[in-house]
Amino acid sequence: MNPTITAFERSPDRGKGQARDMRVRWALEEVGQPYGVRLVSFSEMKEPAHRALHPFGQIPTYEEGDLALFESGAIVFHIAGRHSGLLPDDANARARAIAWMFAALSTIEPPIVDLGVAVLLERDRNWYAQRLPLVEDRIRGRLGELAERLGDADWLDGAFSAGDLLMVTVLRRLNGSAILQEYPVLSAYVARGEARPAFRRAFDAQLAVFTAASPD
Amino acid sequence: MNPTITAFERSPDRGKGQARDMRVRWALEEVGQPYGVRLVSFSEMKEPAHRALHPFGQIPTYEEGDLALFESGAIVFHIAGRHSGLLPDDANARARAIAWMFAALSTIEPPIVDLGVAVLLERDRNWYAQRLPLVEDRIRGRLGELAERLGDADWLDGAFSAGDLLMVTVLRRLNGSAILQEYPVLSAYVARGEARPAFRRAFDAQLAVFTAASPD
Repeated sequence: MNPTITAFERSPDRGKGQARDMRVRWALEEVGQPYGVRLVSFSEMKEPAHRALHPFGQIPTYEEGDLALFESGAIVFHIAGRHSGLLPDDANARARAIAWMFAALSTIEPPIVDLGVAVLLERDRNWYAQRLPLVEDRIRGRLGELAERLGDADWLDGAFSAGDLLMVTVLRRLNGSAILQEYPVLSAYVARGEARPAFRRAFDAQLAVFTAASPD
Repeated sequence: MNPTITAFERSPDRGKGQARDMRVRWALEEVGQPYGVRLVSFSEMKEPAHRALHPFGQIPTYEEGDLALFESGAIVFHIAGRHSGLLPDDANARARAIAWMFAALSTIEPPIVDLGVAVLLERDRNWYAQRLPLVEDRIRGRLGELAERLGDADWLDGAFSAGDLLMVTVLRRLNGSAILQEYPVLSAYVARGEARPAFRRAFDAQLAVFTAASPD
């Protein structure tokens, strides 16, 4: 039985693949696991039926038999644990790849989400223009450290892992900003992720949802 | 051989146990694993020797034989995988407990960190007073949903798990604010966590570092 995930009925980024279902789709494509998608509207996401699956009323969720999961990081980890290809077999290398999963979501993503929150919710405030450089500089601090660690390696720690998958999707949230281009090492890293056939299949699948919902 | 973790030489919260080493200490105490602590100063944290362990120049790190880890979530997960007591044996229950680990760090902690960043870095800005209620309301949104899900249960999903451990430490970062008290369900949840003997031992250990560094 194939798992079912949820995704936005209408992608707020107009099919750029920045919503968190992209991570789960990509992981499923990397391991070759077919899946179903149930689309939910913004209002459905906040209703009790969806909140039973996701306490914070968001997407994605993951259902597989008796198991229901939320949190994209946990879902990617679950997929990586069930299949080979996303986490190394060696115990130490596996623990380090998991550290990069947490780093992507708890160290790199929060300042990037802050920027999104500022743009989305504080653009009309009189402090917006003055505060924006502070928010961007906090992102630059993290990206500089990440670029330094990555250096001229292809991936964060040996072979491509779920840590890279999450990191690339987190960095892609900056696609609307020019900040990422200030770090050529990271732009090239994101491009390597996007060039993977599994990424392309996942990207095309989420884009098809947006295109179908917006016939023109 | 016991693992060694790193912690602040001088706790910025004056021994309140809000730094991220507390999570790792608590996990180690829950499973009964003795550990060593290496204290690092703020300047040492940013030097190459420490950055080799932690790319973002922070604490805690975790060293055990050939393995070096960073990210408190990943370290707690590693400890939970090596010992029993922090994650259920049943595969589905285990996946759900891991989802709560990610929820604590990627859904609940970021708006709480935002508040800390505002207080620490934007207090002197002319927008501080106007913006603070927006930041606090974003926290309230998450806490309301979390309280709703927890309801009258003791822990987030069955028995106490690493998900609860991380969630309690994340909520404790609000101890300097009155927001947590608006959610009696969550205050009581944090108090249940703090009442665990392993929490007390971990708390006393980090407090002893602060007390020793500040004899008066």
